[in-house]
Amino acid sequence: MKTYKIRSQTIQDDPNAISVGLVEKKYFTFAEPPHGMPIDSGGKLGPITIAYETYGRLGPEKNNAILVCHALSGDSHAAGVYHDDDSKPGWWDFMIGPGKGIDTHRFFVVCSNILGSCMGSTGPSSPNPDESKPFGLNFPFVTIGDMVRAQKALIDHLGIKKLFCVIGGSIGGMQVLEWCIQYPERVVSAIPIATTTRHSALSIAFNEVSRQAIMADPNWNHGDYYAGTKPDAGLAVARMIGHITYLSDESMRQKFGRRLQNKEDFSFNFDADFQVENYLRHQGKKFVDRFDANSFLYITKAADYFDLKRQYGSGSLVKAFEKVKSRFLVISFTSDWLYPTFQSRDITQALKKNGLDVSFCEIEADCGHDAFLLPLNRQTDIIKGFLSSAYSEISS
Amino acid sequence: MKTYKIRSQTIQDDPNAISVGLVEKKYFTFAEPPHGMPIDSGGKLGPITIAYETYGRLGPEKNNAILVCHALSGDSHAAGVYHDDDSKPGWWDFMIGPGKGIDTHRFFVVCSNILGSCMGSTGPSSPNPDESKPFGLNFPFVTIGDMVRAQKALIDHLGIKKLFCVIGGSIGGMQVLEWCIQYPERVVSAIPIATTTRHSALSIAFNEVSRQAIMADPNWNHGDYYAGTKPDAGLAVARMIGHITYLSDESMRQKFGRRLQNKEDFSFNFDADFQVENYLRHQGKKFVDRFDANSFLYITKAADYFDLKRQYGSGSLVKAFEKVKSRFLVISFTSDWLYPTFQSRDITQALKKNGLDVSFCEIEADCGHDAFLLPLNRQTDIIKGFLSSAYSEISS
Repeated sequence: MKTYKIRSQTIQDDPNAISVGLVEKKYFTFAEPPHGMPIDSGGKLGPITIAYETYGRLGPEKNNAILVCHALSGDSHAAGVYHDDDSKPGWWDFMIGPGKGIDTHRFFVVCSNILGSCMGSTGPSSPNPDESKPFGLNFPFVTIGDMVRAQKALIDHLGIKKLFCVIGGSIGGMQVLEWCIQYPERVVSAIPIATTTRHSALSIAFNEVSRQAIMADPNWNHGDYYAGTKPDAGLAVARMIGHITYLSDESMRQKFGRRLQNKEDFSFNFDADFQVENYLRHQGKKFVDRFDANSFLYITKAADYFDLKRQYGSGSLVKAFEKVKSRFLVISFTSDWLYPTFQSRDITQALKKNGLDVSFCEIEADCGHDAFLLPLNRQTDIIKGFLSSAYSEISS
Repeated sequence: MKTYKIRSQTIQDDPNAISVGLVEKKYFTFAEPPHGMPIDSGGKLGPITIAYETYGRLGPEKNNAILVCHALSGDSHAAGVYHDDDSKPGWWDFMIGPGKGIDTHRFFVVCSNILGSCMGSTGPSSPNPDESKPFGLNFPFVTIGDMVRAQKALIDHLGIKKLFCVIGGSIGGMQVLEWCIQYPERVVSAIPIATTTRHSALSIAFNEVSRQAIMADPNWNHGDYYAGTKPDAGLAVARMIGHITYLSDESMRQKFGRRLQNKEDFSFNFDADFQVENYLRHQGKKFVDRFDANSFLYITKAADYFDLKRQYGSGSLVKAFEKVKSRFLVISFTSDWLYPTFQSRDITQALKKNGLDVSFCEIEADCGHDAFLLPLNRQTDIIKGFLSSAYSEISS
């Protein structure tokens, strides 16, 4: 029996282990020309490929499917490992697996990479069928709504008529809300986590500065860099800005404080003196190896455009939710200053005013917006409890 | 009689007008080689030139001098105008002038540009006496303590034995605290505003990302860009990051919300759709015309290094203040999340534990850290009141 050390947990490759074990990335292509998929910015896009993974088994009644939606830089690899000696499990491995919060003994879990990303699904780094090179800025703007429509095509393809649950944090939570509005008949329950119905000026500001950092890099070259040097320096700065907003003042104090990085005194130069400087530089560098700068631009802009009130409610969030039929668990974290709790309360109130069954839980956590990506027992327990209770009802 | 339209006020060039009127930038050079001024990073620096302005008159007893310390990107031009048709008065013009918060009928006001800056004082963009070009990264690291020692040389030069008050916000507030510790006999009263005794990990993080944005710009060229193209793109991004931290979530909501910039609908491209995007781009562009990227690097690093506990208190802030003799007015703003109120409370408590006379005032303001630069009556009134009462005491 092999044992993998994963974060603070240990998973094992035997049938009783808590990991889903070996998993495989799959691809679904649709909207072949001349059809294409209509998109919000006008026109049609196609063919579209969506990368996805599944865990657990779809039951004979096909009523046990859960769609997991990832955040800005996530991917379809939400749980398990790719090969025996893979030390990097999926990004929500602590949440998804046999006996876990999203229990794969019971549920069939689907996670797909969003349209516009670069982790297997069609995006600005994909080959442009009209040219002999990647799209770059010729890729059309896609919205959170477009991402959800592409997910819906995948769910249709998998033969799932009704999703038992759609769940996700941050931009993943935006997708959850879009699903409930666009396809009210197809979502039994929904768990939007640490999310918002529209970015505040502050959130737009952080995204805009990140984009400016990328576009200031001469290697960005108006998005046409795939044959040359990538805008790594700009993308690293963009990632560092993002990272600050994912943490909290308190978590940074606990994690780094003013501790120096392998030195007793100040260097009096521009090296990383403080651990927090070193951490940010490291995060920036790591990111450029796995993520595409243009995808970062497109997805942050889609998040900035996202505005349920404006798009579906003529200015009213209550109206935006009027056709929604799902039951909800809304989760926020006390120290999230990117999408503060009051925004989750707004969601909860607007849903309740539509007579929906909504539970709201603000979790006490020091770790900021990124809390949903951390193995907090409280989050796992309430998700597990909510899913279990909702599933008993539809199965009884 | 001429009338200048300045911000929301009107100043007039007659003796009863509320502006100090026409002012002039002066220069003081000291520490000529071979002497030089010892600096914290080791060695000596010289000659040093300090740009400064003065308003009002030094009284015969020379006990009415107030030193105003500016923040990161400020300069010595704190009040008045340079010429008759100058529409841009000093950065604290609403505070300094006849009858104003710092009343030039009564006080002689000095404001000098900090060492390391680029607004007339010696800094990385100044000519390096050892080479035929500006210092660039050959400029030695200077600390807040060094900046204050250079100010002290100027104050000596002006024949002022004791400063009636040292006042400043943000990095200016750090200088205020340094003055009180380094020269306890020479500061009668002190007003540190919206400041801290040491940067939190969050503040260091924002500064570090700003520095990385500059250093990621190939035109930065390791600080050696004075003969070529300046790293404007990187510096603009750095300024944009700073600007976000100077505002608050609430002030951005009020000022911009999600309002679009001269358009009815989203552009679906990377133009500035939202007003907040346009504002930040504008701030970035404006800044590069007047500020030097290397100075930005040096001053932010000095602010990150600033740590009174570490430098003067062997880990204790109370001990750091043990030789201080001034009386204090400590001011913070409710919405300042860069240097939150609790940091000003820490200052107040540590001063009080040393038996000092300290007033603390947290001002209710939505506008974030930058509040001290805005004409808030509350701030002006309490500064005026404090100065007036303290001055009566020493004059009686």
